[in-house]
Amino acid sequence: MDSLVEYTTQETSINGVKLQPLQVIDTPQGAVLHMLRGDYALMPTFPAGFGEIYFSEVHYGEIKAWKRHQLQQQLFAVPWGLLHLVLYDPREQSPTKGQVLSLSLGRPDHYNLLSIPCGIWYGFTAQSHPGALLCNCANIPHDPHESEHIPATSPLIPYSWA
Amino acid sequence: MDSLVEYTTQETSINGVKLQPLQVIDTPQGAVLHMLRGDYALMPTFPAGFGEIYFSEVHYGEIKAWKRHQLQQQLFAVPWGLLHLVLYDPREQSPTKGQVLSLSLGRPDHYNLLSIPCGIWYGFTAQSHPGALLCNCANIPHDPHESEHIPATSPLIPYSWA
Repeated sequence: MDSLVEYTTQETSINGVKLQPLQVIDTPQGAVLHMLRGDYALMPTFPAGFGEIYFSEVHYGEIKAWKRHQLQQQLFAVPWGLLHLVLYDPREQSPTKGQVLSLSLGRPDHYNLLSIPCGIWYGFTAQSHPGALLCNCANIPHDPHESEHIPATSPLIPYSWA
Repeated sequence: MDSLVEYTTQETSINGVKLQPLQVIDTPQGAVLHMLRGDYALMPTFPAGFGEIYFSEVHYGEIKAWKRHQLQQQLFAVPWGLLHLVLYDPREQSPTKGQVLSLSLGRPDHYNLLSIPCGIWYGFTAQSHPGALLCNCANIPHDPHESEHIPATSPLIPYSWA
């Protein structure tokens, strides 16, 4: 049932943003979808014990953007629907500063784990009806003081959601 | 944003099976749904580092039953759709041996965390169209040698899915 594919990661056009293919086991009753195991390449380190798992749904046609974290690393999978995700690297010291990365996460063709380091702006919208569901296994619990929000239309980020 | 409600658990009619209410934060773009944090009452102990997170979807009208584990504890939440879940206690030493517990998990009215100890038979079906999605944060990784399956129609369990 397990596959070596889950233990390999792919680099992306933004330094430190990584993808790992995940397995989907189809059955007539409904699929089983892997997300995270202790021996996965993208397994986070939890600096103070386990962090947090939460879900974020987005309705078709709606946008959740932009957000970035100072301390919390994101680990995303999309088990329901298809998400269009955009990331932007504003980090002064990054070799990929200024890069925009646009990708799909979800089923059927993009069921991958996505790791986002601190400092990267991200936002997403649903490509599927009636929406999509993101699962995040973050390395620290939610703390409103370590995250920033700017509007989806902010000129600080060279990407248009229109 | 946090609520004391998430730190209280409810006993059920089966010894050791516990429920914890979870918070849903509605927004016009789509809800944020809590699942698990390190300080939750039902936070599992991971005996050998982190266990596993996976999803199991079930299509409307389909049944996934029956399964039980010798070593793996289950921690379920249903972030999409509504699941009908049935549990049966066959444990010889249990004060609730022979009890059947039938409950709903999912949205909008039953968004709870459910903890299932080892030895309990469980099965589920979707009450919502087109299906429902279960997330399990298990305390050990998947191991086919420690779980058992019997058919949904097995006479060993006094419950009819019809």
